[in-house]
Amino acid sequence: MRASQMNFNSRIPVKMAFMVPIAALLVVTQAFAQGAAAPREIDVAPMPALVQMGSGSLPITAAFSVGITGQEERRLHRAVERLLRNLGEQTDEPIKTGIADPREATLVVHAEHVSQNVQAVGEDESYTLDVTSTGARIEAPTTLGALRGLQTFLQLVEITPKGFAAPITHVEDKPRFPWRGLMIDSARHFMPVELIERNLDAMEAVKLNVLHWHLSDNQGFRVESKVFPKLQALGSDGQFYTQTEIRDVIAYARDRGIRVVPEFDMPGHSTSWFVGYPQLASAPGPYAIERHFGIFDPAMDPTREQTYRFLDRFIGEMARLFPDAYFHIGGDEVNGKQWDANPNIQAFMKAHGIGNDRALQAYFTQRVEKLVAKHHKIMEGWDEILGADLPKDVVVQSWRGQSSLADAARSGYRGLLSFGYYLDLMWPASQHYAVDPMADGTATLTAEEASRILGAEACMWTEYVSPENFDFRVWPRAAAIAERLWSPESVQDVDSMYRRLGVLSWRLEANGLALSSAETMMLERAAGTTDITALRVLASAVEPVKGYMRYQLSRAEGIEPSNLDGLDRLVDCVPPESETAREFAEKVNQLAGEQFHDGEVEGALRAQLETWKENDPKLQPSLQDSALLYDARSLSAELSALGDAGLRALDYVDKGERAPQSWVTQELATLDAAVQPKANLLLVVAPPVRKLVVASAGGNAPPQ
Amino acid sequence: MRASQMNFNSRIPVKMAFMVPIAALLVVTQAFAQGAAAPREIDVAPMPALVQMGSGSLPITAAFSVGITGQEERRLHRAVERLLRNLGEQTDEPIKTGIADPREATLVVHAEHVSQNVQAVGEDESYTLDVTSTGARIEAPTTLGALRGLQTFLQLVEITPKGFAAPITHVEDKPRFPWRGLMIDSARHFMPVELIERNLDAMEAVKLNVLHWHLSDNQGFRVESKVFPKLQALGSDGQFYTQTEIRDVIAYARDRGIRVVPEFDMPGHSTSWFVGYPQLASAPGPYAIERHFGIFDPAMDPTREQTYRFLDRFIGEMARLFPDAYFHIGGDEVNGKQWDANPNIQAFMKAHGIGNDRALQAYFTQRVEKLVAKHHKIMEGWDEILGADLPKDVVVQSWRGQSSLADAARSGYRGLLSFGYYLDLMWPASQHYAVDPMADGTATLTAEEASRILGAEACMWTEYVSPENFDFRVWPRAAAIAERLWSPESVQDVDSMYRRLGVLSWRLEANGLALSSAETMMLERAAGTTDITALRVLASAVEPVKGYMRYQLSRAEGIEPSNLDGLDRLVDCVPPESETAREFAEKVNQLAGEQFHDGEVEGALRAQLETWKENDPKLQPSLQDSALLYDARSLSAELSALGDAGLRALDYVDKGERAPQSWVTQELATLDAAVQPKANLLLVVAPPVRKLVVASAGGNAPPQ
Repeated sequence: MRASQMNFNSRIPVKMAFMVPIAALLVVTQAFAQGAAAPREIDVAPMPALVQMGSGSLPITAAFSVGITGQEERRLHRAVERLLRNLGEQTDEPIKTGIADPREATLVVHAEHVSQNVQAVGEDESYTLDVTSTGARIEAPTTLGALRGLQTFLQLVEITPKGFAAPITHVEDKPRFPWRGLMIDSARHFMPVELIERNLDAMEAVKLNVLHWHLSDNQGFRVESKVFPKLQALGSDGQFYTQTEIRDVIAYARDRGIRVVPEFDMPGHSTSWFVGYPQLASAPGPYAIERHFGIFDPAMDPTREQTYRFLDRFIGEMARLFPDAYFHIGGDEVNGKQWDANPNIQAFMKAHGIGNDRALQAYFTQRVEKLVAKHHKIMEGWDEILGADLPKDVVVQSWRGQSSLADAARSGYRGLLSFGYYLDLMWPASQHYAVDPMADGTATLTAEEASRILGAEACMWTEYVSPENFDFRVWPRAAAIAERLWSPESVQDVDSMYRRLGVLSWRLEANGLALSSAETMMLERAAGTTDITALRVLASAVEPVKGYMRYQLSRAEGIEPSNLDGLDRLVDCVPPESETAREFAEKVNQLAGEQFHDGEVEGALRAQLETWKENDPKLQPSLQDSALLYDARSLSAELSALGDAGLRALDYVDKGERAPQSWVTQELATLDAAVQPKANLLLVVAPPVRKLVVASAGGNAPPQ
Repeated sequence: MRASQMNFNSRIPVKMAFMVPIAALLVVTQAFAQGAAAPREIDVAPMPALVQMGSGSLPITAAFSVGITGQEERRLHRAVERLLRNLGEQTDEPIKTGIADPREATLVVHAEHVSQNVQAVGEDESYTLDVTSTGARIEAPTTLGALRGLQTFLQLVEITPKGFAAPITHVEDKPRFPWRGLMIDSARHFMPVELIERNLDAMEAVKLNVLHWHLSDNQGFRVESKVFPKLQALGSDGQFYTQTEIRDVIAYARDRGIRVVPEFDMPGHSTSWFVGYPQLASAPGPYAIERHFGIFDPAMDPTREQTYRFLDRFIGEMARLFPDAYFHIGGDEVNGKQWDANPNIQAFMKAHGIGNDRALQAYFTQRVEKLVAKHHKIMEGWDEILGADLPKDVVVQSWRGQSSLADAARSGYRGLLSFGYYLDLMWPASQHYAVDPMADGTATLTAEEASRILGAEACMWTEYVSPENFDFRVWPRAAAIAERLWSPESVQDVDSMYRRLGVLSWRLEANGLALSSAETMMLERAAGTTDITALRVLASAVEPVKGYMRYQLSRAEGIEPSNLDGLDRLVDCVPPESETAREFAEKVNQLAGEQFHDGEVEGALRAQLETWKENDPKLQPSLQDSALLYDARSLSAELSALGDAGLRALDYVDKGERAPQSWVTQELATLDAAVQPKANLLLVVAPPVRKLVVASAGGNAPPQ
């Protein structure tokens, strides 16, 4: 553990961090004494801070029950009932969902103190969990910690050769960072309440504790305001959350130990406000809801007092609606064009010695911060708010990177990292997993400065995400980030992470997320049939283009993307990361490591290559017939060509022949074409096939 | 069309069967005049009676709308709104769900008359549907026919190279049989209301019009009785439908043009009644809810007047709850043991000249029929009620076959076929499809007798079916039976049927059925991860054992199956019919037909065989780790062996060599072992692989 974190942890007082009951320790010791040494890893994500495994397990049958001792808190009861329900679904055992007498219960949950009424940043989430062959026990300083322990217990239950069971284990656990968030953008595409709720379930499963809810942007204003009803009436196409729904979501989140921080983006990203209230803007209206994506000119007028009177009343209303101590005002990406073009604003700047747009935004931010504080909230904003001189309790969320985050910390502000955690960029989980809030720019912070890094948030911007594919765009990758934020920094094994994400994903899906079921549905729609075996072969070999390339490719073709466009093409049906490609690449590397002599690995590669090779004739007709798949025709042909190239390469290697240069040249040209994006997709199996072709030419092949 | 049917149809007056408006015909004629001749088949199931296809299509966009002229009936409005919602989901177009002004609507629905308050057997279901390049029109004598037309229209909408569209078509349609049912057994495993409702949606899609609801059996009494509350209180484990729920389901069904016929099985299959009311039984209690399957001794005492007093009040209560004209009293499988052992019953029989148990049941049936008639219902029962002399309006449901059905018809009773339509037997869809109510035993009926065959019912008995896998156990196979009952007898193309079932299945799944999503969830549970690629390879190559073999295999192993057993093994996760096996077998036949010289077909076969061959090493560890998959270990190994055998066989054929006899002998022995059931599964890809091996030996191979 790094010094910075030691310090970090020390500023969040952990009252009873390692409260291991003597009895439990004795049992664990005994288990280890009996046991086969070095038991395998548990399949829990995020990985707890300390895990000691015994040998043997606690069988989970229909008789499983949970009792509660210690503090009574209704949400703990509900959490236990939820655990029992989930366990019943996951094991298909008819487990009863009532709370049992703790003297007879299989699992006893003991919380020493009740939680705070409104969950605070840094509230104790620690717990210990002991599983023996006859029962289990969770102990925690607070009910919040007990909730975390319940999720760990649920994930311990696994299928074994003898039925469902939880391995004998001793767990001591607490989070590395106190602020572990997921940002959901409900503005670009509106996300229904049931989607938010099932994602809160998933967040609870991986111990994320903040829903950062991006509720307004150019493309929509998504909350009912009773004070300014034209915000939602004219700014949302009818797609907004009522205040009752907001309260329900907040209660739902609190039940799961999750804070809800609302974001109302200002002074930019605010076109939707101006449809109903054009007087807020820096240029005359009328305004219409924005359908396109990018940075737009409309911005609030920071020079008129009526803007602040409006915001005072608005923030007051929302501060009452959202109980959390923090209030996010956005503050990002103001291009200043409306300000530059408005003579009144220019005159105001001159009169007040405000030299540029940056300074004008700083003035706005300071004014808004006072309003936020007046309504008893702590302000949060994106990097750009840093331009202003603000009270030191303000939290800066960095989308620009650790250096920007470090700047904030050095200036005395607290900060959150989001750079590197943008789920809309379609990175593989491993890439997010490698990002650490305390690395790179922040690595050189003093201990005190480092202690200001509260944590981080995964962000899902929804320009290209609909309610249909939201879940599989976010999960399981968000869980890799959740592990980075909860688990000790030393937890770094990428293979283990992927393996555990596979286990976690089925639990999340059993718990209501639309992962593979949604992919299947969308593929079936595109094909118009359930007979999608060949389509799946192609779908599993591609990934959506990365970063902002989809947007750029559209614009390069002269098409301005819009949130009215359907998200129902092949690119929308496939997950961000191809499991097939990852496994295929791994096998190619294994084979190379084995000097191309592992029959089993080669056999598996050949089966895969053969499947690709034979796929195009089967698939091509249905691609031709479907407007949703039409642009994937050449990808399918290329996949078959890749299959053929890989098989021939293996043939040369097997025969000990060097592949003829003419063939190699031709195949490499084909492969170069294959890695170009098509239909906003990348044929991600091309690079490992390239490796086979190069090896067959004696190129990177290991010495014979 | 056969004479028998002509007669059949003539007894159901079709008021306006072929009401094609002149305008529509002109348009169709025009379309054909323009068009490319012989357009392809439409993807609708069941296939309408008459389809004329034009060229071109009606684009379906967000602007699509529906207007209603003619009769106003609330359920027609709701059906249109449902159509619009389903269409929006299936096309991902933001289609508005309100009813449009018919002058501006894309589709106009016109019904001449409202429907009857309680849907009658033989009520007119005919309609015509015309799709032109600018709009569509449904005309029907009744709103019931309009509902049928809406479902045809919905199924016409398909993805095309230019987006979603409905082909230009003229359809004239009406059912072949007036009674087209699905029986759901809610007794052996209780099926929740939402499952019943989503299955009613699926029934509507394929124009089935009767839900025959098997509501009581030895294993449970599933309806709330207010008169005899101990029926559900002691006979259901708390798993029963309240009367409010029953009314909701009936209204839900009526909205979809579906009658609900309740079945309360008596005098046998009635143990659950006796838990609360042992005085009804023929032997003293106490009784417990039966957990096992089969034919059991408990039967009502037909000799005591109190039995009939009870049934009078009970049937009266249920006759008020269920508005349908028909009331099913079961009547099947009484073994008579309790009767034989009861001296009072024996004395009664002697006193009344009742010579045997069959005669005693006839006496009971006659008494019960009078009670049913007293409460204004027409009695229905299984074959066994035929023993009694009954009024001629009684309907006999035949589980024994067409001969039994023909006997009923010759005796003047009306009848329904269920033999050949038992979905729990795990037959392939093609096998059910080949069964015809008017074939075999019924083929020799006179026209008048034949006219008594009202139709048929698919039956799903649920000994081995849970709410988790119910949908994919029933669908899409039930749709093959629905087509047999709706479409003209001449509709017989099995390949077309399978292709259209694939299209239908995605629509059903988009509409809420748990088909592939449920399979995936169950496979993931069994594997404990979403990484189930290798498990899917095995799962797609097997089918559950057929007929009653699962029950027989259990008992042969000394295990008495129970409805408390989990249904979560591999056999429970796989659909009744393997698409992969069917397609593989087809390709083997194609290759044989091509004298083994079709490179594309052979390539596809090799890819599949290679995948199987390489699968076991990948899959075996997770089979070993899971109690739910453990017994499938040898299947996995055998599948790999099959893959290897098939590849070698193709090698011999390709080289023009005759495979060595020793190898062939050995492989055939392996194949013989592979076709034996294991883990209640059949490796259904073994027979086509066997064909390859035999061909490689020069056996059944075509002459070179």
